[in-house]
Amino acid sequence: MQLKVKPQDRYKNTKVLITGGLGFIGSTLARRLVELGSKVTVVDSLVPEYGGNLFNIHGIENKMKVNISDVRDRYSINYLVQNQDIIFNLAGTLSHIDSMIDPFTDLEINVTSQISILEACRKNNPETRIIYAGTRNQYGKAKYLPVDENHPLTPTDVNGINCIAGEYYHLLYNEVHGIKACSLRLTNTFGPRHQMKHPRQGVLNWFLRQIIDGEEIKLYGSGDQIRDINYVDDVVNAFLLVGASNNVWGKVYNLGGISVSLKEFVKAAIKIYGKGKYTVIPFPPERKKIEIGDYIADYSKITKALSWKPKVNLESGIEKTFKYYEKYKEFYW
Amino acid sequence: MQLKVKPQDRYKNTKVLITGGLGFIGSTLARRLVELGSKVTVVDSLVPEYGGNLFNIHGIENKMKVNISDVRDRYSINYLVQNQDIIFNLAGTLSHIDSMIDPFTDLEINVTSQISILEACRKNNPETRIIYAGTRNQYGKAKYLPVDENHPLTPTDVNGINCIAGEYYHLLYNEVHGIKACSLRLTNTFGPRHQMKHPRQGVLNWFLRQIIDGEEIKLYGSGDQIRDINYVDDVVNAFLLVGASNNVWGKVYNLGGISVSLKEFVKAAIKIYGKGKYTVIPFPPERKKIEIGDYIADYSKITKALSWKPKVNLESGIEKTFKYYEKYKEFYW
Repeated sequence: MQLKVKPQDRYKNTKVLITGGLGFIGSTLARRLVELGSKVTVVDSLVPEYGGNLFNIHGIENKMKVNISDVRDRYSINYLVQNQDIIFNLAGTLSHIDSMIDPFTDLEINVTSQISILEACRKNNPETRIIYAGTRNQYGKAKYLPVDENHPLTPTDVNGINCIAGEYYHLLYNEVHGIKACSLRLTNTFGPRHQMKHPRQGVLNWFLRQIIDGEEIKLYGSGDQIRDINYVDDVVNAFLLVGASNNVWGKVYNLGGISVSLKEFVKAAIKIYGKGKYTVIPFPPERKKIEIGDYIADYSKITKALSWKPKVNLESGIEKTFKYYEKYKEFYW
Repeated sequence: MQLKVKPQDRYKNTKVLITGGLGFIGSTLARRLVELGSKVTVVDSLVPEYGGNLFNIHGIENKMKVNISDVRDRYSINYLVQNQDIIFNLAGTLSHIDSMIDPFTDLEINVTSQISILEACRKNNPETRIIYAGTRNQYGKAKYLPVDENHPLTPTDVNGINCIAGEYYHLLYNEVHGIKACSLRLTNTFGPRHQMKHPRQGVLNWFLRQIIDGEEIKLYGSGDQIRDINYVDDVVNAFLLVGASNNVWGKVYNLGGISVSLKEFVKAAIKIYGKGKYTVIPFPPERKKIEIGDYIADYSKITKALSWKPKVNLESGIEKTFKYYEKYKEFYW
């Protein structure tokens, strides 16, 4: 489908709420939307471990509203969704391993809060559009490759189960309550503005930090497990296209693009940085239990629907990421 | 697979916990287990709307333990699962419409509590076996008939989403934590000991009450929507077979048996009772939105695995149900 209005025009003066808007993808999206002339509000809990960082919006903080609150807080969400034309719903935890240790917290954030947001829309803003950030983690171990949107959902961890429920809620509210909702199932995403304190919400950026810090990267198993990778700007483009579209509501789309093994990613990063080292070690038992094996996304559905394709190649993405953190290291380390 | 030990032998002196054990299916199961010589504990919240009824265990209350607590109460569950050989996990809300009005309560009972139960097992009784009562509501509108276990899960209401999550949690704890778990996806079940106060947790028994009360039954739409129906004793047999089996863990099985339209069910009931009337009315809008159309279960997987087949025919089931409520009406009306 060709869009009648270009995204850049669609977003001018549009009121946009971004949950998790101080996080990695949320803040990158916020920056683009401010450039496009949107009236942006970001909501973020700034829970230290989760990736929200005020520096992520450095330089644009006066061109947008920043509201510190947790999506688990039903009262603030109930107010914040009002009068928003579009909601990019990116708040959520992503840690596979944390979800296994503390399933209740993952449930609160990834399911209970999603109901809060959708109920708030139903009661206070049923005309809004809401785009949910789903995950390839919903598929679990791939039964075939590449994985399309019809692949069975057989999650291998609590986080995957909860993200399925979160997505189903969005589709249900679209179907039953007429709130326009769409889900993008994200794959591993890397790039600037990702938190760099620990590896539990995204391992790719963590590898880049280890290279910068001169630490030896430890790859589990053989390091040959394939991941499908996106650079953050491409993911943000997908969100912008979906938010400006009329034909996506009630649907789910895979993102994806660069299929490489973790070892290949690390090798490419070491080559670009000019130094670095890695080794392979056996899977820790708690990791082995939830490991998904290879994952390659079939993202042809969104290409067909919205002409979306990732544009940033691996080397260029890694290079931009290194440059960003070398410049702003003090705000992330 | 043929069982080496007959269920009746398997259950003698076995310690069994039944969540929702004062409810319709739970109490019927408890009665059978007491007969088989099990050491039964039932846990039930006796929330007035949900179907728990102390009269359901009339006559056997001294041969078992009754513990009144809610599965949302993590502390009591943490204690109650200890030393149980088998847990029949039947506590849950079933109301499609209530779940749409109050999704949070449905989530607490059908998801959060399931994690509580499973976490309690993981910490205090990892050797136990747990059988989860899933539902055909997880499938949503059938894309093909009969519906087998590989049918996509596309729920049409909040209750369906939450039951999917509840089931996924059981399968995950089986896979990752080694707690033996199995899910039976129940279809519409009717029979003695079902609550008779309102139609929101099962419409079949409600039709029978309306016939007894001389009220006109109102069928939505044409009344031709097909449901796959089980008499409660057959469902209880399936639970007993699964609990005594060694090859079911990590698996899901459909139940099913009698495929009839709601109108056919009502006509059969009126014929057996000797009087009664029905009419068809348009779907109320909030019902229409979540209506699933026809449903027919393919239950060949459990037939193959455990030789389970429903044995009670429709007329006989209806007759037994009428007789029960005529005798004990005062405890249910």
